[in-house]
Amino acid sequence: VKTVLVTGAAGFLGRHTLAPLAARGYTIHAVVRPGGAIPDGLDERIAWHRADLLNPDEVERLTAAAGASHLLHLAWDVQHGSFWTSSANLDWVVASLKLFDAFSNRGGRRIVAAGTCAEYDWTAAMPCREDVSPLRPSTIYGRSKLALSLLLESFSEGRGLSAAWARLFLLYGPWEHPDRLVAHVARSLVAGRPVAVSSGTQVRDLLHVADAGAAMAAVLDSSVTGPINVASGEPRTLREVLDAMSRRAVAPGLVQFNALRDRPGEPAVLTADVNRLTTEVVWTPALSMAQGLSDTIDWWANRAHSAPA
Amino acid sequence: VKTVLVTGAAGFLGRHTLAPLAARGYTIHAVVRPGGAIPDGLDERIAWHRADLLNPDEVERLTAAAGASHLLHLAWDVQHGSFWTSSANLDWVVASLKLFDAFSNRGGRRIVAAGTCAEYDWTAAMPCREDVSPLRPSTIYGRSKLALSLLLESFSEGRGLSAAWARLFLLYGPWEHPDRLVAHVARSLVAGRPVAVSSGTQVRDLLHVADAGAAMAAVLDSSVTGPINVASGEPRTLREVLDAMSRRAVAPGLVQFNALRDRPGEPAVLTADVNRLTTEVVWTPALSMAQGLSDTIDWWANRAHSAPA
Repeated sequence: VKTVLVTGAAGFLGRHTLAPLAARGYTIHAVVRPGGAIPDGLDERIAWHRADLLNPDEVERLTAAAGASHLLHLAWDVQHGSFWTSSANLDWVVASLKLFDAFSNRGGRRIVAAGTCAEYDWTAAMPCREDVSPLRPSTIYGRSKLALSLLLESFSEGRGLSAAWARLFLLYGPWEHPDRLVAHVARSLVAGRPVAVSSGTQVRDLLHVADAGAAMAAVLDSSVTGPINVASGEPRTLREVLDAMSRRAVAPGLVQFNALRDRPGEPAVLTADVNRLTTEVVWTPALSMAQGLSDTIDWWANRAHSAPA
Repeated sequence: VKTVLVTGAAGFLGRHTLAPLAARGYTIHAVVRPGGAIPDGLDERIAWHRADLLNPDEVERLTAAAGASHLLHLAWDVQHGSFWTSSANLDWVVASLKLFDAFSNRGGRRIVAAGTCAEYDWTAAMPCREDVSPLRPSTIYGRSKLALSLLLESFSEGRGLSAAWARLFLLYGPWEHPDRLVAHVARSLVAGRPVAVSSGTQVRDLLHVADAGAAMAAVLDSSVTGPINVASGEPRTLREVLDAMSRRAVAPGLVQFNALRDRPGEPAVLTADVNRLTTEVVWTPALSMAQGLSDTIDWWANRAHSAPA
């Protein structure tokens, strides 16, 4: 029996991993923070736990209760706006090491944890490749994730565990933080409000979060080890993305390019080489960009209609 | 008043930092492990402490007792032969973070910690430069040190501390582990024994540990931040080094080149760019290679004569 412990399971990405994991035959133990809401409408066979992963005693209790063979570690401090520079990142490095240790001590055999494109040097040549691109994170978040990836590699080597480190690029879709770009534009379009954006010339790799959840389940279910990019592999200008969204809006011209400045230091191009994901995990996205964006706008439209006024 | 807490103070490098720190006007608190010997013949004004840095309570007690403005963190698990792959490396990452936190909480303002040339990609172009050379450690030791450097950078940024990370290359001299290359050859020469070595074609940067100790004191006493190579900046073949040693031996021909194979995976060249050390810290070695090797052989000769039979 394959049993997986999923941390951050109620988060943006986490909740999209659960159905794909169930479909792959995993028994699922899902963790939310104390007082955190357990998502509705998901598989009833999921065993939900509440635990503060920053508390070593709770980590011991949780890993003992789950007795999982697999760990999908997504929990982190990703408070919008502050997480790039928060010192909580360091606490999460230490807490993650404790989690890996407790999981391994209870017989765990494979770990997949969430890394980030922010580990790469954004001034270097694109697309980012796991084995050759320089790693020079410029933020506390990126440095902390890269540090944890190095520690996980060492830990798994020392314990004879299998471990992969999924470097996630840009995700969008249902449950995204409402202030992030795609969500913000979708909400504006749904409301018929004009929305100010920057030049749109930035080239990015965007992946629908349902695909990202499926990719994480596929990586976990594979024997791939070390860093692996999780992305679409299809670079797009933000203008392409936002134009595609705009075409689905009730009124034209709501997306106002060049109404905001590009952020200083923002890379012109930030894209992923997905060769490992495509050929070693043998996974590709199910949704086209048009489908993914439609789904996202529909989801925000439904939420707008069902939300209290 | 500048007060420094030196961890690993009785170690190979640590004991050579104390006189240079005293000369720069630091009040010194020096830490050895519980049961560890306190070195003889050093400055009597040094306040010695015994503490297990892997124990958070002892770290609190130690940092409170020292009340230091500066931290020179050299302690680590560097058990000869095992430290490259030991899981103790991870414990030292966590313990070091705890130490940084406790030191900062007690008013500490500047940290210098020991990194390693093993953080660099040894297959990349040489010499290693702090700002551009790729960081791809291939060992648990190298990965753990690199991880800690990233975490220290984040921690110091978050707390507004000043911090530098001294990447040490090869050191030799008094108190080196007797099984390491220079010490092993010196002991053989002193005893008049033949000593088998490999080709000697390897190019390395070797620094006498007394110079390394002085360099660490200089780095601590500077305002340089981030990674900084601590090395001689003078690449030598090992053959040059061992030939120079051999010329000082009582009998010729004791050093037998090519009697051992080069280790698989060993880099042909591993050298340091010392521009930061030279121009920003404004420090250069005091000892020539000939002087340093003479000193080392003399030291082993004295030890051989004073050791019990």
